[in-house]
Amino acid sequence: MQFQNINEETFIQNILQNFPVKEPILGIGDDCAVIPDAQGNGWLITTDALVEGIHFLKDQISSFDLGYKMMSVNVSDIAAMGGTPKYAFLSIAFPKTINATWTHDLIKGLKEACNKWDILLLGGDTVGSKRDIFINITLIGSAPLPQIKYRNRAQVGDAICVTGFLGNSWAGLKALKEKVPVDDSVSHLLQAHFHPEPHLAQGIWLASQNEVHAMMDVSDGLDRDLKRLLKSSKCGAIVETSKIPLAQALLEVSQHNQWDPLNLAMNGGEDYCLLLTVSLDHLPALQKAFCAQFNTFLYEIGLITDTPERLIYQDCGKEFQLKEENFDHFQ
Amino acid sequence: MQFQNINEETFIQNILQNFPVKEPILGIGDDCAVIPDAQGNGWLITTDALVEGIHFLKDQISSFDLGYKMMSVNVSDIAAMGGTPKYAFLSIAFPKTINATWTHDLIKGLKEACNKWDILLLGGDTVGSKRDIFINITLIGSAPLPQIKYRNRAQVGDAICVTGFLGNSWAGLKALKEKVPVDDSVSHLLQAHFHPEPHLAQGIWLASQNEVHAMMDVSDGLDRDLKRLLKSSKCGAIVETSKIPLAQALLEVSQHNQWDPLNLAMNGGEDYCLLLTVSLDHLPALQKAFCAQFNTFLYEIGLITDTPERLIYQDCGKEFQLKEENFDHFQ
Repeated sequence: MQFQNINEETFIQNILQNFPVKEPILGIGDDCAVIPDAQGNGWLITTDALVEGIHFLKDQISSFDLGYKMMSVNVSDIAAMGGTPKYAFLSIAFPKTINATWTHDLIKGLKEACNKWDILLLGGDTVGSKRDIFINITLIGSAPLPQIKYRNRAQVGDAICVTGFLGNSWAGLKALKEKVPVDDSVSHLLQAHFHPEPHLAQGIWLASQNEVHAMMDVSDGLDRDLKRLLKSSKCGAIVETSKIPLAQALLEVSQHNQWDPLNLAMNGGEDYCLLLTVSLDHLPALQKAFCAQFNTFLYEIGLITDTPERLIYQDCGKEFQLKEENFDHFQ
Repeated sequence: MQFQNINEETFIQNILQNFPVKEPILGIGDDCAVIPDAQGNGWLITTDALVEGIHFLKDQISSFDLGYKMMSVNVSDIAAMGGTPKYAFLSIAFPKTINATWTHDLIKGLKEACNKWDILLLGGDTVGSKRDIFINITLIGSAPLPQIKYRNRAQVGDAICVTGFLGNSWAGLKALKEKVPVDDSVSHLLQAHFHPEPHLAQGIWLASQNEVHAMMDVSDGLDRDLKRLLKSSKCGAIVETSKIPLAQALLEVSQHNQWDPLNLAMNGGEDYCLLLTVSLDHLPALQKAFCAQFNTFLYEIGLITDTPERLIYQDCGKEFQLKEENFDHFQ
């Protein structure tokens, strides 16, 4: 895993060095690339690949859920910048052994997602594969340019917030891998893993609020994603771990199985909620309005500081060392 | 191969049934989807996937050529409708065994293509893969809406033309698979296979000519692609096989190896030249102007007829039965 990670990172660094991107293109290093048009809007473009054996196991996820999830993860990238998804392009490679029921259900899942978020699937490429299934979606969205949020706009003194529970999806995957018996709580976690719901309406609403400064989605775990936000914004943060929102189901299942729920919430991934920074003065009003709008909390978890890239975790005010643990997918 | 083909076709049919696309979106069934903007331009969007073991063998194509080729095939789709490529998104999945030299050269090939056609690589996704390499590019181009060419606009009486030699790429692949000793001619065919040059300038120029009615690229072989054009345009065609442009290298290598060059040209693939229909009255002037512009011929190979989807091949006026032979890639 380590070598592969290095290799992927090296590849990305190599790409960035060789393909410098300049204005008018925006959103470099963000969840989407932003192409401004002449009318004051921006096209938001994102692309995500899922690979069998790495991101999913064919006998552990239904193709319906896979179809839904592959659209969800792209929608989350559009939501992360406050955009509205519009047009999707699907590339899929599958081997001869795939049967019609599997592809039929995949399309059903995809369709449910497209219908839900009013996305038009406009094209793609369907090809053979020797062994594994590969799926790639490119999703195009749009937003008024002034409302698009970026991850490099955090300001010193901002409150750091998240829009939902963390760690559920990863706990669901862990339950799956460790064959934990399925009760209501485990089922809740599995649902978070198999059928993630991107915070699209929340993203659009938050993007329309001036006091929201930086925004991105949490797809690779809070710890890793917050570090990316801090790096982009050239600032630091103090996070109070007791404020990290943990679902009752996560707490229960963790207790039964001697898991560390905080570790799952911080180092996990595939949460697909939003991470944002908000002017501290406006936080109470924004939290109240958010709660009225969505009937869920906007969780404040920390503060932006002026020490570039220094991320400090505190547990009730006392410095706390996070276990460096990278959950892998299926490797 | 047969079962897989059916499966891929079935999948595409299933997608089309489930995701009907309507105006204002154009280009349905074309090489690109076309999204009109408010200023009279269209965004042209295409996506193409290449899979190891299906579209390429890692030990038979350099990663430089692979990088260049994967961009070329997408550029050809934009060229097919008369657009100018602008922005690319790359998704790549590779296993841990890939070394840095391989990815470095892939990026170099990609960069050569991007520099050549002035394309900005704006983003993508880099992920692991269990075994095979999977590469997907989504390419976005643009063109003035009235100039975009579609494959459903052929008119009865139009001349059918192609912009270059056919069969070279497939003959190159055949030479590779049959381990034909490499001389100058074989080398020429290998170059066509490994380093295809999409007819971008030709596409843009042809799109600006009103007398060009329908256009697409030849990526899956003339026979198969022409049938698609006829189906879209609800017409038929007579093609004079003696007029199919065959390169000297193809003729020579075919003679040495007892290959049927016409069969390679008609049933082959990956030619990446353009197939178009032109008002017969204007053909001579257009051919002259094309030749003056590009120093190559615009080859007339047949005529559009009024019998829907009836494709007749003639050899010097005598009906000719084309061998139904589908060249596969590496299966």
